[in-house]
Amino acid sequence: MTTTDTTAELDDSMRNGVDTATLFATLDAVKQAPQAASFQFRAHNQWHSGTHNRTTISDFFGVGEERTHQRSFTFDADHPAVLVGQDHGPTPVEFVLHALAACLTAGLANIAAARKVKLTQVRSTVTGDIDLNGILGLDPDVRNGYQQITVHFTVKGDAPAEKLRELVEQSRARSAVYDIITNGVPVTIQIDTP
Amino acid sequence: MTTTDTTAELDDSMRNGVDTATLFATLDAVKQAPQAASFQFRAHNQWHSGTHNRTTISDFFGVGEERTHQRSFTFDADHPAVLVGQDHGPTPVEFVLHALAACLTAGLANIAAARKVKLTQVRSTVTGDIDLNGILGLDPDVRNGYQQITVHFTVKGDAPAEKLRELVEQSRARSAVYDIITNGVPVTIQIDTP
Repeated sequence: MTTTDTTAELDDSMRNGVDTATLFATLDAVKQAPQAASFQFRAHNQWHSGTHNRTTISDFFGVGEERTHQRSFTFDADHPAVLVGQDHGPTPVEFVLHALAACLTAGLANIAAARKVKLTQVRSTVTGDIDLNGILGLDPDVRNGYQQITVHFTVKGDAPAEKLRELVEQSRARSAVYDIITNGVPVTIQIDTP
Repeated sequence: MTTTDTTAELDDSMRNGVDTATLFATLDAVKQAPQAASFQFRAHNQWHSGTHNRTTISDFFGVGEERTHQRSFTFDADHPAVLVGQDHGPTPVEFVLHALAACLTAGLANIAAARKVKLTQVRSTVTGDIDLNGILGLDPDVRNGYQQITVHFTVKGDAPAEKLRELVEQSRARSAVYDIITNGVPVTIQIDTP
């Protein structure tokens, strides 16, 4: 095997920036030890003032042990002035749209890599329609959350349009955030008042 | 009215960093024109490489017109190395936990202000349990998203514990993100393959 062959093999493993060899090895490892796939993710939030608060994301549990991200991430959330805030960050509901776009896009890149499709561009705009008469308590028939969410993808790659659409569909079918948002998750709230 | 009186009145309007006079004026304005409460929020995402992608949040529609945040916000999402990513940002599912903490906390500050309770500390940790056998396609009986989410609040303020708990409960009852996560939202995906 020449250096050129080795490079070619590496290139074949790396696709769309996804190390497919590691991806398949991870799948095999979880098949052998399904409990490794039990993860707990966490967000730590502190209120600052008014609708402004800040979340730190750092620690999580997975593959049998406590872990941390390479660095700690912090995110501010707030309301814009028109919603009586100071606009120090996006509204909480906008982060939900970001989460959905990010999850579908990450899955798309992984699935395309696994199926040997090279992507050249993936863009999306996610919109969420909400009637604030709900959260303002002004109309009991209006829900608090989004009434509908629409994701508009533009996907380019070295496969026919139908194939690219199939990849997006498979990403949807395996998306954690899509499942959370469309099917709901039970939420428990505990309160300490020291 | 003396300057001191004016200051006292201002202090009474501002509570927990919330301008309650503006808050109540906004409620009255929406009562008079309910269609002003129709908002559309948006997230624009671009894929970078592998599971790394970036969202820009800037424009939204509300109170009858197109608007923008005071500045454009960008957020990276990625997977950590243990999930075959480069850890350029939190995972998409961690942003969901952030959104929930931020929404409940913003609502709590508003509601406490409206009910004349002064908060001195609000912290929360949100945890989400997920079995990745779902998204990895290894077990058809495992869902893709979180199996459960728990919010643990620590709330301090100038009210009895029972009152502080009532404020959190009212925030939950009017939270957009809590509603989205617990009750689900229909999501439509459109795909352009130019």
